[in-house]
Amino acid sequence: MHRYRSHTCAALRKSDVGSNVRISGWVHRVRDHGGVLFIDLRDHYGMTQVVADPDSPAFKSAEVVRGEWVIRIDGTVKARSDETVNKTMATGEIELYAQEIEVLSAAKELPLPVFGEPEYPEDVRLKYRFLDLRRETLHKNIVKRTQIIAAMRREMATCGFTEYSTPILTASSPEGARDFLVPSRIHPGKFFALPQAPQQYKQLMMVAGFDRYFQIAPCFRDEDPRADRLPGEFYQLDVEMSFVTQEEVWETMEPVMRGIFEEFAEGKPVTKEFPRIPYDVALRKYGSDKPDLRNPIEMEAVTEHFAGSGFKVFANMIASNPKVEVWAIPAKTGGSRAFCDRMNAWAQGQGQPGLGYIFWKEEDGKIAGSGPLAKNIGEERTEAVRTQLGLEAGDACFFVAGDPDKFYKFAGEARNRAADELNLSDKNQFALCWIVDFPFFEYNEEDKKIDFAHNPFSMPQGGLDALENQDPLTIKAYQYDMVCNGFEIASGSIRNQLPEVMVKAFEMVGLSQQDVEDRFGGLYRAFQYGAPPHGGMAAGVDRVVMLLTGAKNLREITLFPMNQQAQDLLMGAPSEASPSQLRELAIRPIPPVKKD
Amino acid sequence: MHRYRSHTCAALRKSDVGSNVRISGWVHRVRDHGGVLFIDLRDHYGMTQVVADPDSPAFKSAEVVRGEWVIRIDGTVKARSDETVNKTMATGEIELYAQEIEVLSAAKELPLPVFGEPEYPEDVRLKYRFLDLRRETLHKNIVKRTQIIAAMRREMATCGFTEYSTPILTASSPEGARDFLVPSRIHPGKFFALPQAPQQYKQLMMVAGFDRYFQIAPCFRDEDPRADRLPGEFYQLDVEMSFVTQEEVWETMEPVMRGIFEEFAEGKPVTKEFPRIPYDVALRKYGSDKPDLRNPIEMEAVTEHFAGSGFKVFANMIASNPKVEVWAIPAKTGGSRAFCDRMNAWAQGQGQPGLGYIFWKEEDGKIAGSGPLAKNIGEERTEAVRTQLGLEAGDACFFVAGDPDKFYKFAGEARNRAADELNLSDKNQFALCWIVDFPFFEYNEEDKKIDFAHNPFSMPQGGLDALENQDPLTIKAYQYDMVCNGFEIASGSIRNQLPEVMVKAFEMVGLSQQDVEDRFGGLYRAFQYGAPPHGGMAAGVDRVVMLLTGAKNLREITLFPMNQQAQDLLMGAPSEASPSQLRELAIRPIPPVKKD
Repeated sequence: MHRYRSHTCAALRKSDVGSNVRISGWVHRVRDHGGVLFIDLRDHYGMTQVVADPDSPAFKSAEVVRGEWVIRIDGTVKARSDETVNKTMATGEIELYAQEIEVLSAAKELPLPVFGEPEYPEDVRLKYRFLDLRRETLHKNIVKRTQIIAAMRREMATCGFTEYSTPILTASSPEGARDFLVPSRIHPGKFFALPQAPQQYKQLMMVAGFDRYFQIAPCFRDEDPRADRLPGEFYQLDVEMSFVTQEEVWETMEPVMRGIFEEFAEGKPVTKEFPRIPYDVALRKYGSDKPDLRNPIEMEAVTEHFAGSGFKVFANMIASNPKVEVWAIPAKTGGSRAFCDRMNAWAQGQGQPGLGYIFWKEEDGKIAGSGPLAKNIGEERTEAVRTQLGLEAGDACFFVAGDPDKFYKFAGEARNRAADELNLSDKNQFALCWIVDFPFFEYNEEDKKIDFAHNPFSMPQGGLDALENQDPLTIKAYQYDMVCNGFEIASGSIRNQLPEVMVKAFEMVGLSQQDVEDRFGGLYRAFQYGAPPHGGMAAGVDRVVMLLTGAKNLREITLFPMNQQAQDLLMGAPSEASPSQLRELAIRPIPPVKKD
Repeated sequence: MHRYRSHTCAALRKSDVGSNVRISGWVHRVRDHGGVLFIDLRDHYGMTQVVADPDSPAFKSAEVVRGEWVIRIDGTVKARSDETVNKTMATGEIELYAQEIEVLSAAKELPLPVFGEPEYPEDVRLKYRFLDLRRETLHKNIVKRTQIIAAMRREMATCGFTEYSTPILTASSPEGARDFLVPSRIHPGKFFALPQAPQQYKQLMMVAGFDRYFQIAPCFRDEDPRADRLPGEFYQLDVEMSFVTQEEVWETMEPVMRGIFEEFAEGKPVTKEFPRIPYDVALRKYGSDKPDLRNPIEMEAVTEHFAGSGFKVFANMIASNPKVEVWAIPAKTGGSRAFCDRMNAWAQGQGQPGLGYIFWKEEDGKIAGSGPLAKNIGEERTEAVRTQLGLEAGDACFFVAGDPDKFYKFAGEARNRAADELNLSDKNQFALCWIVDFPFFEYNEEDKKIDFAHNPFSMPQGGLDALENQDPLTIKAYQYDMVCNGFEIASGSIRNQLPEVMVKAFEMVGLSQQDVEDRFGGLYRAFQYGAPPHGGMAAGVDRVVMLLTGAKNLREITLFPMNQQAQDLLMGAPSEASPSQLRELAIRPIPPVKKD
């Protein structure tokens, strides 16, 4: 027989009854039922109930073992009586009658309980991560994470993609975030950087003639810890394709991502065909370029109904500035003064002057609008608003007025707030969409000039001609995001691979050809030697895993995370370097300035 | 029609004749045959021959394009005439008659030719790696590398393993090589380290209750560049299993590795059942713990035949020191004085006093030994040597005498030399084996004490009992290597997961429990809380890929390698950091000391 096990702790079934078997694992818990000992033995695969009564030769050993000891048990498989069968356990029809127990590794008193998973302080959980990881929920999340990543690899391969690894010790990159630096020992005073993303390398691979690249890529950004970003490293499903249009990227990646969601959604519905929503439309309808489409509310402009109306605040704003619009946030089932007042109070809490509203009720067999706004604009305009939005008695509508560029975010928040309060969203689904046609430039109010709105790697729609002849603020980029339930889960673009278009775009934001060469030297040089049209995207692995596990915290889906102070409490990192290490690297820490 | 292509450059066949198609790619070369232009158009997938005669509307464009321009071609598929069919090309039965050519990206004059792949200086190839990677051989190697890695993932998954990613920003590790350090911005004066291997993490995962871990793991060692090791990062197939004996690791991983070799060996034979050769035996038979088993020579001790013989040099050595042995290196077909003298001269070139030999020829119907040694030891002993080794007329044998610990390496080199000179090895195969039972301790002559022979993570055979009661230098470890064609391709062990055995082993090399905690704190702590018996191995991905591609240089199988001075010439790394970066990281480079 095998030294440690003939079966895993998940393997035994009714058909094994009568067999003599061997299992090994951790003591999940020990119970004493009137002198009979029950040990739940756990391994990676599952759990088996072990019994030792005073007649068992293993009884003495069974009395000694404690939670989280590692033991081997030889025993005989017995059927459980009908009333003790546990249908929630894979091995619930049997139990193992212990004949022999060997302690493979005892455990000291536990700093962190495994059984039952009570809440426990984060620092203890991180320092004793090897115990924390034994807890069922975290163990399952980590396994699911690996399954999701394996499925990504499988799906990408099925679509003809090849996984290539790009360098981790590389050059400082101009992608915006802060680099982690690595001092070079062989070149004192010089530094490698860890990649913020393999962006330049994947584009170089396309120029090098490879096609359909992907990578589950480790990325590194030295940012201050945030709730939704762990300090240090994160993973993205990084994708690039040659000779493609953006439609082809969408048509390729949409089924991959939908497939991943469907495979791991545990029955929750997943969007069949991702709507492709232009950036401008997303802002107008949802007040966000990361709309949560589980929320059924769609905003609409109702400016005309307020222009010249008796509601002077809005009417005067409209008259004085052609940019001013009034947006309606329709709130089905919200038609009560109490709810409308609550929303108004919430808006004031957000620093807004208030949130105008109308709500409708049935009066004398007719649908009538109520509230101060309805009074001010009168019955006819109130009815026009209701008709435009398709509202009924029992519904409400909120109104935001001003320059949409300035209020759209708040309007989006009000949209979410209303849906949450009224329970309008079916949360139990994965609602996916593409946001497309991002603006290429944006106006920088501070410097009174245009800047790149997102990244300068993207190809402007219309190419050189648009850059030369079009109002720059109307130029769109071939750039797109994939959004799920209000979170950006992927971002991509068709790249600008034409050196003269690149230089022109940089000139328009006040930079020179030299700046292009300084910031993207490797790529810019490469584009001089035959660069194919190419594009791709990168999906956030951690975010997708969080959505699919329902985890609220990155530490719930990460094997060995750092804490919020960017420390690995288990391994004790970061730590001081030895003087000889520092000497070899030719660097010296600068002692902190003492503060009185 | 698709904006760029209806087919790849590898797709068109005779059945497509008559179709109007679109392809895009790089101009591999342009030939002018009597006014008719032939363009070989290349993409990631293959090559298509395009024709433009003066009647073609694309002729003018075809006259302009040059090597490595990226173009789109619309055309009509035509069958080639029988005499122009190219059977070595997948598309060799057709050619594309060009109707329209669009230049997607022109190329400047090339610093490095792609077509024909002539030898070119390494620094140019690295600086223009995106051109170098277009060359057929390198392109193929890189693709094969990705296929080998994908096959490793597939095979490991088939065997029930799960891929987990372990942290890249971690703590300095005690594995022997030099760490790359990463200054922490949030904790000034402290440093992360890049992992030399995920050794501690994978063991922690076993303690955390996971089972059958693997990872294609990036590893980092700041070593001086060597021919067989690139500066910076390398990859290993990292494996760990719980509740296993070493036999189970071998039985699991041998089929995986054999499968990989068989899949990519292109028909070359691969060892069916890997011999398990104890370390001691490997040294005695092959003079190496990384024996090249393609070489059929097996050495044998022939001490008794020289003890008390007329060859006084050996006889006196044997008489004066019980450690002294004489090893024979039989060399079939080497039976000529010229060859034996050549070997002798080679040995002297290696700093040896010489290499004694006997060679046999047929004389008067009898097999007779020749050479000075044969004369000295006489006919009977010469014949005894021949019989023991199974040699015949036409064969030779070389002899090395002394303390085997000191000469075994040289003997192994002589074994290889003889086989190479005599062409005894069938190089066209992959000869794999396990080397097992490595010694746990070794004697450190300098410090006059015992040290760990390999790594202190391994479990000593016999456990605590052996440590307490056995001559330490006879204790073996549960440690093993996998060797192919003379290269170590994997190394592993059953780990020492018992704190008291760990402490005892450390004490025996003069270290304390405190040293254990300092060097392996995370692991040592974890072992106190229920650690399963576990073990595994790590296989060198780069070495396996080199063997399977036949590449002689790591740069031939690596996408974006650094040069031998640890620089990335393409991206310009390492480079100077900005003063603000250094300030944020609270480090200051130490200016080099001026040397006069």
